[in-house]
Amino acid sequence: MAAGTIPFEPMPPLRGLRVGTVMAGIRKADRRDLVVFALGPDATTAAVFTRNAFCAAPVILARAHLQRTRPRALLINTGNANAGTGAAGEAAARACCAALAERLGCAPEAVLPFSTGVIGEPLPVDRLTAALPAAVAALAPDGWADAAWGIMTTDTQPKAVSRAFARDGQTVTVNGIAKGAGMIRPDMATMLAFVAVDAVIDAADLQSALEGAAAGSFNRITVDGDTSTNDACCLIATGDGPRLTPADPAWPAFQAALDEVCRQLAQAIVRDGEGATKFITVAVEQARDAAEARQVADAIAHSPLVKTAFFASDPNWGRILAAVGRAGLSELALERVAIDLDEVGVVRGGGLDPAYRETDGQRVMARTDITIAVRLGRGEAAVRIWTCDLGHDYVRINAEYRT
Amino acid sequence: MAAGTIPFEPMPPLRGLRVGTVMAGIRKADRRDLVVFALGPDATTAAVFTRNAFCAAPVILARAHLQRTRPRALLINTGNANAGTGAAGEAAARACCAALAERLGCAPEAVLPFSTGVIGEPLPVDRLTAALPAAVAALAPDGWADAAWGIMTTDTQPKAVSRAFARDGQTVTVNGIAKGAGMIRPDMATMLAFVAVDAVIDAADLQSALEGAAAGSFNRITVDGDTSTNDACCLIATGDGPRLTPADPAWPAFQAALDEVCRQLAQAIVRDGEGATKFITVAVEQARDAAEARQVADAIAHSPLVKTAFFASDPNWGRILAAVGRAGLSELALERVAIDLDEVGVVRGGGLDPAYRETDGQRVMARTDITIAVRLGRGEAAVRIWTCDLGHDYVRINAEYRT
Repeated sequence: MAAGTIPFEPMPPLRGLRVGTVMAGIRKADRRDLVVFALGPDATTAAVFTRNAFCAAPVILARAHLQRTRPRALLINTGNANAGTGAAGEAAARACCAALAERLGCAPEAVLPFSTGVIGEPLPVDRLTAALPAAVAALAPDGWADAAWGIMTTDTQPKAVSRAFARDGQTVTVNGIAKGAGMIRPDMATMLAFVAVDAVIDAADLQSALEGAAAGSFNRITVDGDTSTNDACCLIATGDGPRLTPADPAWPAFQAALDEVCRQLAQAIVRDGEGATKFITVAVEQARDAAEARQVADAIAHSPLVKTAFFASDPNWGRILAAVGRAGLSELALERVAIDLDEVGVVRGGGLDPAYRETDGQRVMARTDITIAVRLGRGEAAVRIWTCDLGHDYVRINAEYRT
Repeated sequence: MAAGTIPFEPMPPLRGLRVGTVMAGIRKADRRDLVVFALGPDATTAAVFTRNAFCAAPVILARAHLQRTRPRALLINTGNANAGTGAAGEAAARACCAALAERLGCAPEAVLPFSTGVIGEPLPVDRLTAALPAAVAALAPDGWADAAWGIMTTDTQPKAVSRAFARDGQTVTVNGIAKGAGMIRPDMATMLAFVAVDAVIDAADLQSALEGAAAGSFNRITVDGDTSTNDACCLIATGDGPRLTPADPAWPAFQAALDEVCRQLAQAIVRDGEGATKFITVAVEQARDAAEARQVADAIAHSPLVKTAFFASDPNWGRILAAVGRAGLSELALERVAIDLDEVGVVRGGGLDPAYRETDGQRVMARTDITIAVRLGRGEAAVRIWTCDLGHDYVRINAEYRT
C-alpha cells in the first residue's frame, strides 16, 4: 500500500557504468541485499550525507574515502546498517571495501561503502565478502532494475526514475534509484539514493549540481522528523560521454533532469512511507525569508495532530492553524494568514473563511494527493515540502519487535 | 487507561475562595461543563498562557482583563474552545464575562474567561449564560472536586493535587486541578490548570512564583509537541490567610508546595495522555547549557520512532542515539555520550555498552515509569522533562471524526 503511484521506470544502460546485484544472506536468505556499482577510471562522484552527528561507520568511511581518491566502486548492503557499532564497525566496513578493491584491482579507498538495515548489530563481514565474487560477476550495464530491488529494506516497491536530454545530438541519460526513509521498521535505518549520468563532469561541478538537486528534493521530505544515521545520496558522472560544464548550453537541461529524478525519487519515498495513505504537499508562501517559510512548513508537516487528521480525511483546519501559530515566528499577524486545501479556501483573516463549506473540505480530503497552502502575508519567500499522513500502520510497524 | 496512577487527592476548602460547577449543555447534555471560581476583594491572580500565536479568544481577553483590574472570578467552560472564531469569538467571550460580572456585582474586566473543547465553532453564549445562575448558586468552599470533573474534556480521570505548609502555626493550603493536554481528540484544545493558595500575596510575587513553578512542571511536559491555542495556568492567592512575601521564612515552603502541586498535575497530564501506556522521564545531563540540554531532551521526547519503541517495550537504544545525533548540537563528541535506561547502562562511548544484556533492557522496558538518562560529556547543564509513548490509541483517538 502506498499513497499514489511509485515510479519504477525503465532504466537504460549508461555508458561507462556497470551494476551488479546478488543475494548475500546478510540478514535474510533469498533476498537481494548486496549491490555493487563499478565505475570507470574517468568517473567522478559527488555525495551528500546525513547531518546526524551519530553517523554510521560506512558514512564516516565513505566521507573519508571521497576526500582521498576518485571512487571506482560503490558497495551497498541492506539488512544491517553498521550503525552504533563503534570502532569495530569501521574496521568491518574497511574490510569489506578492501575485499572488493582487491577483486576490482583498485585502491581500498576507491570503494565507497553504504549500509542500511538493523542498527547496533555487527556487520556480517564474512557473508558479505563471500558474495563479492558473484556480485562482480553480475556487473552489467543493464543492472539498474535489479539494484533498485537490491537496496530495498521495508519499502513496499522499488523506486527508479530515468530522464534524458540531448547534447549536440547525443542522448545523455540520468538514472536514479532510491530506498525509503522515515517510516521505517524498528532499527531499519536510512534513505539511500544512487543517481548517475553518462557524461564527463568535474567533481566540483557535480557536487554543486547534486547539492542543488538535493535541496529541492531529499531535503524537502519529512516522514516523521527522524533523521537517520545512514542517509546518503550519491551522484556519479560515469566519465564516458560528452563533457559537461556549467558553461555548457546543455547544463541547464542536465540540472533539470537531475532535479526531476531526485524530486521524483524523494516523493516516491514519501508515498511509500510505512502506513502512508496520503501524499501531502505543504506550500508556505509570503514569508519574510526562506528560513521562516521552512519553519512553518516543518511545524505543519511534523504535527502528529495534523497528520492523524489527514489519515482520517478530516479537513481539520484548526490543527493546521495551531501548527502555524506555534512555529515560533515573531510578530505573526493572525489577520493576514490564509490557508487553502487544494482549491478550497479554508482560513481567511486568521479564522474560518465564511465561504467555506464542510462538503468542500471533505471533497478535497477524499483525494490521495493534497496541497496545504499557507500564505503568511508578511513577505515574498516561499517553500514547498512533502510529507504523508500518520496512520495505524505507522504505529504497528514501528512498534514491532526487532525479530 | 493511563500510564500509572493519576492523583485525585482530597481538596480541603481554602479560606476566601468558592467554586461552583454545573451542567450547561455546552456540547453534550448531562455533563459538568461550566465552572466558576469566585474570589474575594483582596485576592491576587497570576497566569501563564499559551505561546501559540493563534491564541483563542478567551486567552486574548483573559490577558487583557488581567492587565486592567484585579480578577474577582474565573469562568471556565468545556465543550467549546472558542478558538479560531475571530472577532465574533471575542465578543462572545466578552458577553459571558459581562453576564457573570452582573450576577456577582463586579466589573466585566474582573472576570477571566477560559474555554476548552472544539475549535472553530461559535461559543453557545445563550446556553452558557443561562447556566450562570445555577453556577453562582453552587459556589461553595468545598467545590474543588466537582471542578476537577467539570474542566475535563477527553481526560479519562480528574486530576487534583493538594499540599499544605505551616506558617507561624497556621496551615496554608495549595490546591490545584488540571485537565489534559496534547494527546487530544480532534479539535479538542488545551491544557488548563487552576491553582490557589489561601494566603495574601502581592500580584508580582505571585506571578514570579507561578512562572518558577510552571518552568519546572507544565513547561517540561510534551505529549506530541503540539502547543494548543488555549493553554493556560492560573494561580490565585485568595487574600484570606497569612501574608506571604519572598522575604518571609515560610516562602520557600510555599514555593515548594506550589512546585510540587504543579509538577504532580503536569505529570498527571502526561500519564493520562490519550493512548499513553508508559510515563517517560527524559533526563539530559552534562550539556554545555540549559538550552542545548532541552534541545536534546525535546529531540528524544518528540521522536515518533523512540515513542513507538517504548509503546512496544523495545529497548531500542539506536533510536535514542539517533535522536541525540540529530538534535543539532555543534561539535558533539560521539565517544563521550552515555545513555542509561533506569539503572541499566546501554550506550557507552557512542556505541552499545559491552556489558549490556538485552534481558536487562527488557526488564526495564516492562515497567510503566522509565527514565532515559543521557550524559553528553560536554558541560554541567541538565534538564529533566516528561513524556509518554505513542501507541495505537493515539492514532485511533486523533483520527476520529469530529462528530
